[in-house]
Amino acid sequence: MSSLLKTQHIQELIKKASGLTVEGGDARLKKITERFLTDTIRLIEDFNVTPSEFWYAANYLARVGQSGEIGLVVAGLGLEHFLDLLQDKVEEEAGLDVKSGTPRTIEGPLYIEGAPLSKGEARLDQLAENGEVLIMEGQVKDVAGKPVSGAIVDVWHANTKGNYSHFDQSQPAFNLRRRIETDGEGRYKFRSILPSGYAVPPEGTTNQFLKSIGRHGNRPAHIHFFVSAPGYRKLTTQINIEGDEYIYDDFAYATRDGLIPPVVRHSTAAEIQAKGLNEPFVTIHFDFTLHREEAGLPAAEVERLHAPA
Amino acid sequence: MSSLLKTQHIQELIKKASGLTVEGGDARLKKITERFLTDTIRLIEDFNVTPSEFWYAANYLARVGQSGEIGLVVAGLGLEHFLDLLQDKVEEEAGLDVKSGTPRTIEGPLYIEGAPLSKGEARLDQLAENGEVLIMEGQVKDVAGKPVSGAIVDVWHANTKGNYSHFDQSQPAFNLRRRIETDGEGRYKFRSILPSGYAVPPEGTTNQFLKSIGRHGNRPAHIHFFVSAPGYRKLTTQINIEGDEYIYDDFAYATRDGLIPPVVRHSTAAEIQAKGLNEPFVTIHFDFTLHREEAGLPAAEVERLHAPA
Repeated sequence: MSSLLKTQHIQELIKKASGLTVEGGDARLKKITERFLTDTIRLIEDFNVTPSEFWYAANYLARVGQSGEIGLVVAGLGLEHFLDLLQDKVEEEAGLDVKSGTPRTIEGPLYIEGAPLSKGEARLDQLAENGEVLIMEGQVKDVAGKPVSGAIVDVWHANTKGNYSHFDQSQPAFNLRRRIETDGEGRYKFRSILPSGYAVPPEGTTNQFLKSIGRHGNRPAHIHFFVSAPGYRKLTTQINIEGDEYIYDDFAYATRDGLIPPVVRHSTAAEIQAKGLNEPFVTIHFDFTLHREEAGLPAAEVERLHAPA
Repeated sequence: MSSLLKTQHIQELIKKASGLTVEGGDARLKKITERFLTDTIRLIEDFNVTPSEFWYAANYLARVGQSGEIGLVVAGLGLEHFLDLLQDKVEEEAGLDVKSGTPRTIEGPLYIEGAPLSKGEARLDQLAENGEVLIMEGQVKDVAGKPVSGAIVDVWHANTKGNYSHFDQSQPAFNLRRRIETDGEGRYKFRSILPSGYAVPPEGTTNQFLKSIGRHGNRPAHIHFFVSAPGYRKLTTQINIEGDEYIYDDFAYATRDGLIPPVVRHSTAAEIQAKGLNEPFVTIHFDFTLHREEAGLPAAEVERLHAPA
């Protein structure tokens, strides 16, 4: 079957629809629109997409927007992970020794700005909940190993049901979300509960798509971080909780080497007493290594709309 | 700059994200997802799309869904018109002499099912409004010129402000929307008011995009039709009101040859009296030519979600 895409009429239609035949508007967006239309029309022709299939897809996209799940769909498609790999590559090509710092990985759609800020340490869990007590600590350093004092470790994670405060109205505001300023030795420390992994909402638009291509929507247990300090490049990353069955089968492909620290279990009376606790607990030690900001590097700060606090 | 897309890691990511590495799910959708991801990643790489630009686009898509304007965006991108041209081509290749029938053109997003049904003729305007009186009539025929009696002419159009009932709550239900069953001679007739052209909502997501690429969101005045009859292929079309300044600059590219009938103005006392009117009026004569349904042709009925009545 011959291609309509190659006809003069469709080439002109694409140029007109992309704004390339009129003055004004953003030249870059016009060229991107032209490419998007060309790709879309080629896809429709190559796969003999029917009008009914097309409208089903258009309506699905609209429902994704309405459901508030665009961030989950983008993660599930692997595109958010791809953006991390691309950003690594762009930084390398701009001269940064990317591997000398802590690997970046996806932010995900569940960050809320403005978590309570404290110096040196914090307690994240505000509710009496089931869940193993977690004590996590470490240092923020530069690539030479020098501690970065005054860095902000902005941490957020799910509860034992896999739910995040703000999106889960049963939790108080900013539960399991805190900002911690590192001390003079670059150290941070927090007490919390070990999060569980979770799945995308079972009746949601993301899961509908994943199921239709035979996939699941599970994420392994993880803890999110933004780490920033004046003069350094902001780091967006996560650590995984080792041993999770989905650690290498994350629907969002966010697991990366170097982000799976050991989880050490402590259950002797002496250890429990030394921490002032009355139950067994786990510890995670993890140091963050930041790159210094340098001229000529791409922006480390990603502008992304967050749900309002 | 080398391409990440071509690396084994990204090729594997695309295969995994498309469900091609797991059993189950829809094989066709997996291949389409693989293509979509490949195209998207190539676009991001070729245009050096930044993460902030990517998230702006993702959020824009979500806002389109939330705004209820996906149908306007698709029309404005020329994709709905492209689907018409593709459907013509698919029909031709399946053996239909497409040019012997009335040209199809876009449905648009404003159809409401279940308009009042009457035999032979109808009056569409239910309000005392400014607007020239329009009397439109004609025949539904087959490609041999034989009248099709019992065909349903489902007509909908905007008022003089360019607004459609249902979406414009100031109009009564089904104002300017009717279904008319053709008589024994295949004839239909209706009285209404001449519609005006209109623009997409000025503050809406469609107009935001169109403005950003230097385009306008205006449509020329037009009247929509579905024409259907047992044994015939359903026709989705519009006629344009000749003389409109946007008739060849429609933001949705829906104007097609053969769909711009003459508008005849009548202002003599004799003509006015003969119609039982007390003001000048216009007439449009337009015949619809339907193709007989045949085995082996693609579905003429497009499944598309409509706003509920």
